[in-house]
Amino acid sequence: MPAHLFREIENLKKEILTLGAMAESAVREAVAAIDNRDENAAQTVIANDMKLDEMEVQIEEDCLKTLALHQPVAIDLRFIVAVLKINNDLERVGDLAVNVAERAAFLATQPPLDASFDLQAMAGKAQEMLKKSLDALVQLSAQMAYGVLAADDEVDAMNRRMYQIVQEQIIAYPDQTESLIHMLSVSRHIERIADHATNIAEDVIYMIEGVIVRHKAEDYFRHRLGK
Amino acid sequence: MPAHLFREIENLKKEILTLGAMAESAVREAVAAIDNRDENAAQTVIANDMKLDEMEVQIEEDCLKTLALHQPVAIDLRFIVAVLKINNDLERVGDLAVNVAERAAFLATQPPLDASFDLQAMAGKAQEMLKKSLDALVQLSAQMAYGVLAADDEVDAMNRRMYQIVQEQIIAYPDQTESLIHMLSVSRHIERIADHATNIAEDVIYMIEGVIVRHKAEDYFRHRLGK
Repeated sequence: MPAHLFREIENLKKEILTLGAMAESAVREAVAAIDNRDENAAQTVIANDMKLDEMEVQIEEDCLKTLALHQPVAIDLRFIVAVLKINNDLERVGDLAVNVAERAAFLATQPPLDASFDLQAMAGKAQEMLKKSLDALVQLSAQMAYGVLAADDEVDAMNRRMYQIVQEQIIAYPDQTESLIHMLSVSRHIERIADHATNIAEDVIYMIEGVIVRHKAEDYFRHRLGK
Repeated sequence: MPAHLFREIENLKKEILTLGAMAESAVREAVAAIDNRDENAAQTVIANDMKLDEMEVQIEEDCLKTLALHQPVAIDLRFIVAVLKINNDLERVGDLAVNVAERAAFLATQPPLDASFDLQAMAGKAQEMLKKSLDALVQLSAQMAYGVLAADDEVDAMNRRMYQIVQEQIIAYPDQTESLIHMLSVSRHIERIADHATNIAEDVIYMIEGVIVRHKAEDYFRHRLGK
């Protein structure tokens, strides 16, 4: 690989890790704002999203510049295309953190719920998936990426349990319906964050192995069984 | 533009329109399956998703081939990068249609709901947005793309009304809670489909104008006001 292209690719790795770390923080702080009933912390997450958006635009421009100037081929080309897609995923993780923060801001103004929800466990799992998927990218490790795919099923299971709990709580406390539906939304936002981490891991595997993990037969069985 | 590159780009346009049409049909059929309480139609949508997935993989490979062989620059490079991203959005629209179909399959086994929900209007709007965003891409029309952004607010408003109705219905008919929560999920899936159409329109505008529509100041006010 020419030295210039090598430097550009190293720079892209650094940038995407920075964006990943920003997205992870946003998720962590948004979920903490729910637990702490902290409207100010929620507003901070919302305001900070602008920085993630700026970073995404910069990474995309750097990818385009590298493609135009260095005309990479083979694995280098696939790496840059993977970064373009992962960049998109991370920006949407930032948007989902904003969505969680918006719910946190609302919930902080409502009476506390009777049921307690272990959002931290679910969000912690999703953040870990994000981190591992980006480590897999920079280390070009398909094995690490496969670990992320396995974790997604756990987050999906946690989200389904959340559905169950919310339904029971609505029947027990109909006056809390609005807040409970907001909690359900938070759970789904976290589940979607884990989905983005899964997309990232799949892109890494696809880049490395040229295997189409994204659409493997297993998924279809899962769909069909409605799991 | 060299004749070879021109042909490749024309081919990519055709392919992305085909995938767009497949995604639109999947959405239409999944929503019809809810209204018709038709479990078989829902299963067909789920089974057909494999074809969308295959098409997505082919489009991505064709983009990579075009980048490697023709090393396009300027607007051609931006066009191919836009197709890569839009390809991703369309594949996720297909997944969301599958999610709607899964709810349709479940709802068909439950007693009909007391309230009637106008899903067709919302889904029709989302499909129209999808179609217009892809027309904007192939015609390189920023004006058309801006029309899609305006429509997204309408779908968001429809989704918020849905929330309201579902909450009222849960309080009035607590025994229908499970089915009502499934209807809420459907509404959110449709809202996310409209979001993907919006992403596509934003990518088209960004490609044409080099303007960063995706993260314009307006969005921040919207976030801040929690709308």
